[in-house]
Amino acid sequence: MQAARLHEYTDDMSEALTIDEVERPEVTRSDGVVVEVEGAGWCQTDNHIIEGMWTDYVEQTLPMTLGHENAGTVVDVGEEVTTVEEGDQVICHPVMTCGVCRACRLGNDMYCEELSFPGLTTDGGFAEYLLTSERATIPLPGDVSPADIAPHADAGITAYHAVKKAVGELNPGDHAVVVGVGGLGHIGLQCLDAMSAVDITALDVKAEARELAEELGAAHTIDPSADDVPAEIEALTDGTGAQQVIDFVGADATTSLAPDIVASGGDHHVVGYGGHVHEPSQSLVNGEFSYKGTLVGRYTELQELVALVERGDVELRTSRYDLDDINTVAERLEHGEIEGRAVIVPP
Amino acid sequence: MQAARLHEYTDDMSEALTIDEVERPEVTRSDGVVVEVEGAGWCQTDNHIIEGMWTDYVEQTLPMTLGHENAGTVVDVGEEVTTVEEGDQVICHPVMTCGVCRACRLGNDMYCEELSFPGLTTDGGFAEYLLTSERATIPLPGDVSPADIAPHADAGITAYHAVKKAVGELNPGDHAVVVGVGGLGHIGLQCLDAMSAVDITALDVKAEARELAEELGAAHTIDPSADDVPAEIEALTDGTGAQQVIDFVGADATTSLAPDIVASGGDHHVVGYGGHVHEPSQSLVNGEFSYKGTLVGRYTELQELVALVERGDVELRTSRYDLDDINTVAERLEHGEIEGRAVIVPP
Amino acid sequence: MQAARLHEYTDDMSEALTIDEVERPEVTRSDGVVVEVEGAGWCQTDNHIIEGMWTDYVEQTLPMTLGHENAGTVVDVGEEVTTVEEGDQVICHPVMTCGVCRACRLGNDMYCEELSFPGLTTDGGFAEYLLTSERATIPLPGDVSPADIAPHADAGITAYHAVKKAVGELNPGDHAVVVGVGGLGHIGLQCLDAMSAVDITALDVKAEARELAEELGAAHTIDPSADDVPAEIEALTDGTGAQQVIDFVGADATTSLAPDIVASGGDHHVVGYGGHVHEPSQSLVNGEFSYKGTLVGRYTELQELVALVERGDVELRTSRYDLDDINTVAERLEHGEIEGRAVIVPP
Amino acid sequence: MQAARLHEYTDDMSEALTIDEVERPEVTRSDGVVVEVEGAGWCQTDNHIIEGMWTDYVEQTLPMTLGHENAGTVVDVGEEVTTVEEGDQVICHPVMTCGVCRACRLGNDMYCEELSFPGLTTDGGFAEYLLTSERATIPLPGDVSPADIAPHADAGITAYHAVKKAVGELNPGDHAVVVGVGGLGHIGLQCLDAMSAVDITALDVKAEARELAEELGAAHTIDPSADDVPAEIEALTDGTGAQQVIDFVGADATTSLAPDIVASGGDHHVVGYGGHVHEPSQSLVNGEFSYKGTLVGRYTELQELVALVERGDVELRTSRYDLDDINTVAERLEHGEIEGRAVIVPP
Repeated sequence: MQAARLHEYTDDMSEALTIDEVERPEVTRSDGVVVEVEGAGWCQTDNHIIEGMWTDYVEQTLPMTLGHENAGTVVDVGEEVTTVEEGDQVICHPVMTCGVCRACRLGNDMYCEELSFPGLTTDGGFAEYLLTSERATIPLPGDVSPADIAPHADAGITAYHAVKKAVGELNPGDHAVVVGVGGLGHIGLQCLDAMSAVDITALDVKAEARELAEELGAAHTIDPSADDVPAEIEALTDGTGAQQVIDFVGADATTSLAPDIVASGGDHHVVGYGGHVHEPSQSLVNGEFSYKGTLVGRYTELQELVALVERGDVELRTSRYDLDDINTVAERLEHGEIEGRAVIVPP
Repeated sequence: MQAARLHEYTDDMSEALTIDEVERPEVTRSDGVVVEVEGAGWCQTDNHIIEGMWTDYVEQTLPMTLGHENAGTVVDVGEEVTTVEEGDQVICHPVMTCGVCRACRLGNDMYCEELSFPGLTTDGGFAEYLLTSERATIPLPGDVSPADIAPHADAGITAYHAVKKAVGELNPGDHAVVVGVGGLGHIGLQCLDAMSAVDITALDVKAEARELAEELGAAHTIDPSADDVPAEIEALTDGTGAQQVIDFVGADATTSLAPDIVASGGDHHVVGYGGHVHEPSQSLVNGEFSYKGTLVGRYTELQELVALVERGDVELRTSRYDLDDINTVAERLEHGEIEGRAVIVPP
Repeated sequence: MQAARLHEYTDDMSEALTIDEVERPEVTRSDGVVVEVEGAGWCQTDNHIIEGMWTDYVEQTLPMTLGHENAGTVVDVGEEVTTVEEGDQVICHPVMTCGVCRACRLGNDMYCEELSFPGLTTDGGFAEYLLTSERATIPLPGDVSPADIAPHADAGITAYHAVKKAVGELNPGDHAVVVGVGGLGHIGLQCLDAMSAVDITALDVKAEARELAEELGAAHTIDPSADDVPAEIEALTDGTGAQQVIDFVGADATTSLAPDIVASGGDHHVVGYGGHVHEPSQSLVNGEFSYKGTLVGRYTELQELVALVERGDVELRTSRYDLDDINTVAERLEHGEIEGRAVIVPP
Repeated sequence: MQAARLHEYTDDMSEALTIDEVERPEVTRSDGVVVEVEGAGWCQTDNHIIEGMWTDYVEQTLPMTLGHENAGTVVDVGEEVTTVEEGDQVICHPVMTCGVCRACRLGNDMYCEELSFPGLTTDGGFAEYLLTSERATIPLPGDVSPADIAPHADAGITAYHAVKKAVGELNPGDHAVVVGVGGLGHIGLQCLDAMSAVDITALDVKAEARELAEELGAAHTIDPSADDVPAEIEALTDGTGAQQVIDFVGADATTSLAPDIVASGGDHHVVGYGGHVHEPSQSLVNGEFSYKGTLVGRYTELQELVALVERGDVELRTSRYDLDDINTVAERLEHGEIEGRAVIVPP
């Protein structure tokens, strides 16, 4: 089968991946599942992997097929699989987990001691077929197409996971700020709107992103390149600040907003990782706020997100590309030229 | 009456405060309370105030009497005060709050919109008498002396508040790390031990502090100047990391431990403010950990801490000084030469 | 001034209250507030008070002016009141609280040790003027009329309070059941819809109530007098049951639904009190569900409900009556003949 | 092998079970585990099963080997088992779960859609060997004997689970009541003492049980057959009531204490199921308390309990019996004549 593979780390996205002919994966365990990929989302993290930015955090053996936002149709299952069967349309949670370590049992499957992450630590879904496992597959509702929903497998649950943590701390009348209305942000904004009754302010330097934000539920938008963000938030919140900030950018310029815009006792959720967190400890103490790192999301959260999609609460902006165009996608995302989320549709 | 007052910011602790003769404060509101001070703890924050380190965060008008860890005997009350009366021994919560703003009503009295903070924003307790209010006074159990308990008014509840947040995330068998076993840390350690069933590791560069930690409930101690802290914590936790870290130092060298010692999903509580938080956003994302600022504590938490003291779960190491010796105390603390907590006993 | 007062307990609603000429109340404390009543909601609890059903639970001295859902304009304030002033339009939280007991400080103002409850333990708002306190008054947004919002003072926050507890346990895709779509239920349903992304099933024996439920956000309705409720809920939830049930009736027939319709680990919130809770302990154990009593709501929750009203998320169906018609209202409610919520408008 | 089996429901404990010769179970799935039983606790629930009291709640096919509190040594494992191996000493969580349903993934393994419960719905551990699964086995610390720890598999985690829910609501200085200091209660009391800093009052009609309670951490004990329980609790709590009550009896006489002894906002945890919950809805509303059913506990909670045992925080009172004496044990427990927990040690 064809697969788009990374052979060496590079900053040149125009020749990031090569289309190789490789063996189709086979089920080898009782819980194995092979999926014919019908859609695989391209993610900013793919660019980061190609640049070698994850080598300090996980083990990678090249060449490796990238692609961690996968959906398609089940074509083969291991002999003890009971919850999906051949022919089922599924979205794949991005990680394969053991189900027996303490983290899995607590429901924290992202912390699985035996976790493997297709497209990051093992072969992913920019290919005709993907080997995954029963614990990583979620059957789709009847009328949802795999290529349309694929990006929820990572962009979606990452946004949802952060928003869910924020929603637990928000009451009607509170104020929430969404920083960055791109691939993740536009999903997060809709989740926030569906799951709470708060005033939402969205920050983005692009006018189209701010327009999209207003369309999707933001009560206010701010252009950080033109406006004084702290002054605006202070005015919108009667000086209290925003109880929750969800930062889909994570750059120095966005994390440093926290002391000025987060309400006492509130949180600045760090989802994007474009830069650093850097503040005097006294600043965190004085405002009693937190910087909360947030990593993908749980299998059960992907179920909840699929429920939101089924309810019509979250729509995803996608554009489709052939497997052969994959480096074009990599380049365009690098230059901020992708509208909505790019989905690779293998042959 | 006599009061130790700050006239100008200085780095020279030997002439930090001067003993002035000032008017004894009077009750002016229906909820006012005047306390004859019998003990007022000296805090690292007093040194920071003297150095001018709080001018960016709060408004201060000099001269000002310092002292925010106060306890004594009620000598006068406003006409609508019902919960304390003349002659009662009390510990004073460090802030006076309005009781009618939303923060007060939510129980977050530290975020009171009308908060005043004796010793930080108005006259404090290094004096013969202190003006406070009903909402800031807690009657003491019969057998507790004001001078013995005074430091709990700030050092105590600050430590307790951070520990209480940590305890909510800890299960039996989990691991917690206490960074710094000084004035706050030795209280926090005891609270943690009383309120949970976890393994505690204490970090301190001083041998006596580590010995004290073992005496007070730490299962393990580490000398960060000699040992490889991440390697030790990894070994003690089977590679999982500590679910909660409570950092009473907050220096660059201690906050930077977080990515290596905090378990996935865990927290690094920033209590001390000796330096910065500085990490790549990716580091917070990869480990899904939080830096949580933590600011003093609630009135109800001081009640809970007094209950711990009454149960015998928390003992405080103090040494007493005359008001006249106040600059000596300031200097000694600056040089790390105070054993336990210094308490000023006015004439 | 005129006031509708209860002189003796009776089951005959046609002569429940008498219109007396009484003294207008005066501010006597620094935090007192006198409100000219512009709307006072009539509540099922008023019927229960008239029948003597609360004498086992609270102390009452007759004659007493009833009315605990009050809104109007401030006409006088005590000398230390800062958050409202003469001329402000306000809604009154139903209880006056001390602000200094531990319950108040924890934000649990309903458990105040010194609580007084106009219309239940002291004179209420079926009168031209009401004496209340600063801690019980919430300024209204500019465009909300006191008579339109008055029932939120009790019906509203009671419904909101129960729903808020439920929402904390609900995830997208979960199922919630609202039992009874009357005065409280129709508010609760809207709060639930605004604050969560769950499927809502409403139960009511009246066709109009079920129609209203569908209009206000219920995905499904059931007529318990005609349908097999457990079978319907089982079908709607794939056999799991509803994660949360909010029972605004609290009759034997509704509380006994719990073992059959509440999901494992879920809750049956008892808001109405028309009958008993009666089940074998084994039933609670086997399903690991809870019966949760729920009592009015907090001041801060009334603030949150006012925010929902301001956002347009909750609309209230009311009809207005003169003070002279008060016993007619009492009778009609007794016979289930009131459409929406009756509001008494004093002269 | 020998197994003690139930052939028909009976109230006559003297001939409850018969010792049959049956086939030793075999591993049939990739995750199967066969344990040589070295200790199997006898539980009040075994008496209830024999009486047929569970037939309304679960499906049972007789004959069935009872015994759901099992520990021993692994003698065989399925081919994909990685966390235990032949020769490991283990305690068995009482249920076998699928690991792929939503409940399992949320960590709520007790609500597993495919759950089977040895000794309740399939063959249990009053036998030489037990078939269980990897998801139900927890390796023991080196120095703990299976026969000593076996009762923790059900009595232990049931008590722990209820206590853990209570502890989350308790602050230092609060009051907790333990009703019944028998097999479960004496464990629960120790867990409560280890995990919180609250005053504990224990209720039991037996003097020895009250003595044991004092030894294990209760600050106060009450004999409900002699003392006025509500008056005593009122006196001990300054009229507030107990924030949490954990009722290991669940009889009419114990559940009816709730309105009089539970603090506003508190919980009455129903663990034992000796009778009914029966109260007016108004009573739950007025006190805003909950009756919380509580069912066994999670696998991860059994891990936490094993950690408490390893720390020395919980000791178990047991007495050992041969498999042949099993009906004697059944009879004695029926008559309240078992000291501590009876453990069956198969040949």
